[in-house]
Amino acid sequence: MAVKDLYDTKGAVTGGGSPDWLRSHEAADDTAPAVQKLLDAGASMIGKTICDELFYSLQGDNHHYGTPANTLAPGRLPGGSSSGSAAAAAAGLCDFALGSDTGGSVRIPASFCGLYGLRPTHGRIELAGAMAMAPSFDTAGWFADDAELFKTVGSVLLDGASRTAPIEKLLIAEDAFALADEPVADRFLDILRRAGDVVSGSSMIDVSSGQFDLWRNAFRIIQAHEVWQTYGSWIEIAKPNFGPGIKDRMAMAANITSAELSEAKPIHDAARRHIEGLVPVGTVLCLPTAPCVAPPLDLAADALAEFRARTLSLTCLAGLSGLPQVSLPLAKFDSCPVGLSFIAWRGGDEALLDIAESMAPFREN
Amino acid sequence: MAVKDLYDTKGAVTGGGSPDWLRSHEAADDTAPAVQKLLDAGASMIGKTICDELFYSLQGDNHHYGTPANTLAPGRLPGGSSSGSAAAAAAGLCDFALGSDTGGSVRIPASFCGLYGLRPTHGRIELAGAMAMAPSFDTAGWFADDAELFKTVGSVLLDGASRTAPIEKLLIAEDAFALADEPVADRFLDILRRAGDVVSGSSMIDVSSGQFDLWRNAFRIIQAHEVWQTYGSWIEIAKPNFGPGIKDRMAMAANITSAELSEAKPIHDAARRHIEGLVPVGTVLCLPTAPCVAPPLDLAADALAEFRARTLSLTCLAGLSGLPQVSLPLAKFDSCPVGLSFIAWRGGDEALLDIAESMAPFREN
Repeated sequence: MAVKDLYDTKGAVTGGGSPDWLRSHEAADDTAPAVQKLLDAGASMIGKTICDELFYSLQGDNHHYGTPANTLAPGRLPGGSSSGSAAAAAAGLCDFALGSDTGGSVRIPASFCGLYGLRPTHGRIELAGAMAMAPSFDTAGWFADDAELFKTVGSVLLDGASRTAPIEKLLIAEDAFALADEPVADRFLDILRRAGDVVSGSSMIDVSSGQFDLWRNAFRIIQAHEVWQTYGSWIEIAKPNFGPGIKDRMAMAANITSAELSEAKPIHDAARRHIEGLVPVGTVLCLPTAPCVAPPLDLAADALAEFRARTLSLTCLAGLSGLPQVSLPLAKFDSCPVGLSFIAWRGGDEALLDIAESMAPFREN
Repeated sequence: MAVKDLYDTKGAVTGGGSPDWLRSHEAADDTAPAVQKLLDAGASMIGKTICDELFYSLQGDNHHYGTPANTLAPGRLPGGSSSGSAAAAAAGLCDFALGSDTGGSVRIPASFCGLYGLRPTHGRIELAGAMAMAPSFDTAGWFADDAELFKTVGSVLLDGASRTAPIEKLLIAEDAFALADEPVADRFLDILRRAGDVVSGSSMIDVSSGQFDLWRNAFRIIQAHEVWQTYGSWIEIAKPNFGPGIKDRMAMAANITSAELSEAKPIHDAARRHIEGLVPVGTVLCLPTAPCVAPPLDLAADALAEFRARTLSLTCLAGLSGLPQVSLPLAKFDSCPVGLSFIAWRGGDEALLDIAESMAPFREN
């Protein structure tokens, strides 16, 4: 396995994608429990992987360390922030890789690199010995190219309240598919039709009631506020030399006001209730993981901002609700991978791993 | 007893000193546990009392409802925010009165109205059914004119981890006394000398290491941030017509940034550790409750701001540390009451009530 450089491993300095963080911290005394569990279960670690600087990006590039190669979509971003873990697993350097997901950091690289990727139910996998980002949304997560191994990793990592149940109802988030590039959305809907026997009883729904922008913005504000509570003191003391995108986002994070935060919180609560209400035990929600295939490495800043907003509109659903989401590498478009996602009820992580297995035959080569 | 209009009493709308809050809320279904305990112990309630609007002032005036009369210092402020409770107890309308203290709202009116007043250890008295303000600092509290009854109320209200011990050491906070008007400070130091037999083994210390401004500002920022998290959503919807001082403070609260908050938190932590370290079990810290007697009702805005800053420098010690503080009505100056305070260790509330009793013979008439 490969391990995102957000998890402590005994004797190594955890770097979080930031050379200044690496320089100003000591080697870890202990290995993070999530990593240790995998080691105890027989995994061997090939190394720790590059990630976006302090995890604050979905792109997968790193101004200081370079951009991990997306071997399945050459010339394109790997997606982030768990970029190195996804790139390593996609290139076959390891069988599976540990990442983490706050705003999409497992799901997006899984989609762009053609891997299975899970963002677990918030709180189901212990994050002790892992660098925090925005604790209200932080989760672990992992990647694998093989659905069976992907599930086995889950049996080692998943803790806490599990609620498994057969899938009886599939909701297709029509407005989420509408956010995706049309040919990508069409491809997914076609796969869903072909997989009709696997997950039957589907219906189209409007998942956001037109509130994607509101939800995404509430997510952005709470995340930014928490990021600054996590890293602000260090930033003010260490004055790290941030790469361009993260520098702007950290400045934004420092300036979130009490008023913005208090406006965002009830929106967060309402979104969580709404999304939870959609997926009672036995119901899953299907949506595109990302709105498009991996953008090219040289995408312009304004196009990146637009990519980021569209993507966060999709990823904030699981973020705000704390529900588990799996991304399945079912399709390719223009020979670039793109992932199809399912969100389940709280504790329904195992049901998502079962979906990954049962949908595997529909994966395009 | 009288009860600050921050506590629910079954069938009445809790108003929090704000006519707009009163108008926009329903009658309480239950009586707050703190009030109920006192009723169950045999107290009868004469009514609920005016307080500063949403508790966000130390002055004790209320733009909408008027200013409760300070009968012991006519023409002067009663102190707030538990102004009505203190005024009622001082005027003999009740034997004791329930207040609450976030930034000094029991201690300051106790000082200005010539009453015993306790801010308990943070968390020792349940605040269910009480309007929140800034939960990191919110406590209950009460007033009485009689030291014995003052202690009896404590035996009914105080819950949770009590740690009683004889007082073996008295620290006199020299820099806190230096913040007070000189004749007031001299009067207190004289009382302490005369009371030498009651609390022996005293020594002068510098309590703040020159950090009063830093601590007060950290308190202000965290309080403001939490006040906005408590009331911001309502304020944005209800658009209440705030009185002049509170209007400015709420605007300030709305604009606290993530950066200000993250700078304030380590200062809060350091202050808490420092102050806790000064008062191990058996040691109490003596300081003036307020820097002066009650200001006149017509004090100019700039003088009020200066009064507020000097006062918060003293009151933030218990606020930041969460430690209990008692104010004793021992002195009068220019025939206006002024209180002497003792801060004890966490859970040492009962020891402070004992000090109140043993110091009662030194009260000036």
